[in-house]
Amino acid sequence: MMEDISVVYNEGVAPEDRTAPVMIEGLPGIGHVGKLVAEHMIQELGAEKIAEVHSIFFPPQVIIGDGGVVRLCNNELYRYAGEKGSFLFLIGDFQSTSNEGHYLLSQEYVNIAHELGVQRIYTIGGYGVGHFIDTPRVIAAVNKPELSELVTNAGGVFGDGEPGGGIIGAAGLMLGLSAPLGIEGICLMGETSGYLVDPKSAALVLEVLTKLIGISIDPSNLNERAGEMEVAVQRLLEQEKKSEEELSYIG
Amino acid sequence: MMEDISVVYNEGVAPEDRTAPVMIEGLPGIGHVGKLVAEHMIQELGAEKIAEVHSIFFPPQVIIGDGGVVRLCNNELYRYAGEKGSFLFLIGDFQSTSNEGHYLLSQEYVNIAHELGVQRIYTIGGYGVGHFIDTPRVIAAVNKPELSELVTNAGGVFGDGEPGGGIIGAAGLMLGLSAPLGIEGICLMGETSGYLVDPKSAALVLEVLTKLIGISIDPSNLNERAGEMEVAVQRLLEQEKKSEEELSYIG
Amino acid sequence: MMEDISVVYNEGVAPEDRTAPVMIEGLPGIGHVGKLVAEHMIQELGAEKIAEVHSIFFPPQVIIGDGGVVRLCNNELYRYAGEKGSFLFLIGDFQSTSNEGHYLLSQEYVNIAHELGVQRIYTIGGYGVGHFIDTPRVIAAVNKPELSELVTNAGGVFGDGEPGGGIIGAAGLMLGLSAPLGIEGICLMGETSGYLVDPKSAALVLEVLTKLIGISIDPSNLNERAGEMEVAVQRLLEQEKKSEEELSYIG
Amino acid sequence: MMEDISVVYNEGVAPEDRTAPVMIEGLPGIGHVGKLVAEHMIQELGAEKIAEVHSIFFPPQVIIGDGGVVRLCNNELYRYAGEKGSFLFLIGDFQSTSNEGHYLLSQEYVNIAHELGVQRIYTIGGYGVGHFIDTPRVIAAVNKPELSELVTNAGGVFGDGEPGGGIIGAAGLMLGLSAPLGIEGICLMGETSGYLVDPKSAALVLEVLTKLIGISIDPSNLNERAGEMEVAVQRLLEQEKKSEEELSYIG
Repeated sequence: MMEDISVVYNEGVAPEDRTAPVMIEGLPGIGHVGKLVAEHMIQELGAEKIAEVHSIFFPPQVIIGDGGVVRLCNNELYRYAGEKGSFLFLIGDFQSTSNEGHYLLSQEYVNIAHELGVQRIYTIGGYGVGHFIDTPRVIAAVNKPELSELVTNAGGVFGDGEPGGGIIGAAGLMLGLSAPLGIEGICLMGETSGYLVDPKSAALVLEVLTKLIGISIDPSNLNERAGEMEVAVQRLLEQEKKSEEELSYIG
Repeated sequence: MMEDISVVYNEGVAPEDRTAPVMIEGLPGIGHVGKLVAEHMIQELGAEKIAEVHSIFFPPQVIIGDGGVVRLCNNELYRYAGEKGSFLFLIGDFQSTSNEGHYLLSQEYVNIAHELGVQRIYTIGGYGVGHFIDTPRVIAAVNKPELSELVTNAGGVFGDGEPGGGIIGAAGLMLGLSAPLGIEGICLMGETSGYLVDPKSAALVLEVLTKLIGISIDPSNLNERAGEMEVAVQRLLEQEKKSEEELSYIG
Repeated sequence: MMEDISVVYNEGVAPEDRTAPVMIEGLPGIGHVGKLVAEHMIQELGAEKIAEVHSIFFPPQVIIGDGGVVRLCNNELYRYAGEKGSFLFLIGDFQSTSNEGHYLLSQEYVNIAHELGVQRIYTIGGYGVGHFIDTPRVIAAVNKPELSELVTNAGGVFGDGEPGGGIIGAAGLMLGLSAPLGIEGICLMGETSGYLVDPKSAALVLEVLTKLIGISIDPSNLNERAGEMEVAVQRLLEQEKKSEEELSYIG
Repeated sequence: MMEDISVVYNEGVAPEDRTAPVMIEGLPGIGHVGKLVAEHMIQELGAEKIAEVHSIFFPPQVIIGDGGVVRLCNNELYRYAGEKGSFLFLIGDFQSTSNEGHYLLSQEYVNIAHELGVQRIYTIGGYGVGHFIDTPRVIAAVNKPELSELVTNAGGVFGDGEPGGGIIGAAGLMLGLSAPLGIEGICLMGETSGYLVDPKSAALVLEVLTKLIGISIDPSNLNERAGEMEVAVQRLLEQEKKSEEELSYIG
């Protein structure tokens, strides 16, 4: 039998080279905000993959890569350790396909963090508001009240009970499940329409996150993609407006 | 791995300070009648939280509270022990997201009751009838025939096979699953439209329940909320009527 | 934790008073044909309940009976042992709510049969054809080729690959799962519209079944209900015809 | 309890007569391409059934065969060992009904392959493109980059990231799950409309596959069925065209 969840560390990495005090989670979600932030940081820092997670709770499929070479869908753990500090990054193809799987995977991630000496987890996501926003806010949530001030100072905002429906998936559960292990948890959610991949929202979250972890990361790539997306969105909106005007003309 | 269901008692509460002969269940359901009744009693009696239940069968999300502090969704056990007697209350954010989870959680609740010396469980719910009702009845069900008279004397009504579809979720299963453990079970369901949170129905259930357990609870808060809701419903109905009249005038 | 499936025998019945060479399954299904046949036989023979099956795979609800007394939904095992022979009957409120549960419950039923000395299982169901039928056939299936002749002699018919979609649920799975245990299996499916409970189809299945097991059962009750249903169906069809005529007149 | 997945080898076949270096998977899927190819090869080679797989993850039903004799739905392992070499074939009625089951079944198949000495697995499927194609390509995927050249030489094509959504079910997962066991995996997907069973696409896949495994298989039967299907499709398309012309005439 396949294990429900399996974590395999790269053999080349010694156990003492896996630890870090901070983990940043950027699994797929609304606007792919978390994914964009974490992947951008991995690229800019040159973080290296140290482990893969496979699970029967992921969609039952393989991903096709370069040259038609397949791999199981997975979540991956990256690590950067250098002059800017040590950071773990959790990214991946998918989150769980089932409710129960969400809990079991998130618990596994939190256990990994605990084993690797993590003292604070940042979970990154998008907060879908259903319309395009000029100046998205970075909504925050924490798993201990004393973390709020830090977040506010870095530019994060605590919405009045937002998001009202709670935080769904790993971004929320990792906060809730890490608290009993004594791990601090901060969730940063960039406001986003929810319709498109949103590098602009990601760039704003990156700004808050890097202030919080006390490093600087060049946001050029994200900003560039945000600029391209902005142009595409403007065209989309103009087209819609035009269609509406034509319709009202006919009517 | 996370346990499927975990029960954690507050460390400050000694095992002998957890027991009570009566448990009152008010988990979310139709019209939130059970939730309203149980939470009102907890507040009026000043009952204290003694345990939390977490489970992979709850929705995979966290709840955002004051100051953006998150917590896992859970069910909670409260206890009051004072001059009015000793009571346990089971309340919470959600019921199970899966059929199997409903059974496993309800069995856990009944096991807890058994361990804590409970001899009678009251489960509180709403009975959705699909229209607004001026004088809702309190429909009852029991897990032993000899309990019927008690309930009738307190103002509960046994419908002729109502609800026809049985009682779904914890309110029903806890009655069925407690019988083999020798625990008496009484379910009180306030009639309600099923469209809105219904404090009026909750106040009527409270009246029957307090007679049954032989204590008095000030219903002012519930009645006040019921009054406010009544005004809102009246406005809603008038608006609908008006719209219909306008339509028939046009037609 | 509640067991996924639990079988509890009535304490009053000694193990040697549970056995029988034949088991007849009549769980709910299309047209409730199986349920009607099995319950009619239980009533006419005066069979007695010897065991109850509970499971997390049943719907998460309780059934409300006389005087508002609830019970968990269950499946039940009845037994008749008298001058007409010994028979076990498997009836119940529901089948499984999940695919996996269908397999696990059916395997449990077949294991019970094996333990109780059953050498042949009859599973009874309806075969939904989507329109009302004047003379429904009794379509059969078997788990060993040598059983076919018996069935044909008793009036059962082997459709040409019917039902094309296979036999779903306990009626099918019990045949498939009993073969490896050396238990013979015969499935009898009364043709039925699939729209209504169908005592007429049940009466025809009863006729074939009683020939097969070599006993006679008074079908009056079933026939009476069939007659009543026939009248209701005729009225329904006439009403429909009338509506159509009126429509074509208007058109 | 029934095991979640059970593999039963035919008693008549000695363990040393079960092995082969190559396994070909042709479970049901898009256009039934895999099923057509594998079943054709089994028939032409006269391969023999050596094992059956049953599982609670298959649909909860039995299949009705000749003379109304039922059997559980299953997957089956066939083996050919002769002058053309030794091959295992995995075919069956269904794939898993649940996401988790897809993983657990595919892992089981890969474990079987490992135990039986398989060094390369070919998984065969269809690649649905949503329209009828005159000259379908055979899109390939591999689980090791060094296999690509072999496939290209045999006529397989590596799409530019096709299929974009990955490969779903056993055809994909067996490639992903066999890699860690050191088993080479090649997936061949015949382009097909996705609307109909497609023997033409299957014949083209067969051509590539037989080149890869270095044997020749008479494709006449497949080609004949492809010819018949071609005629049916042409009629379908002409009818559609005619209907459209009539409509535009009327309009």
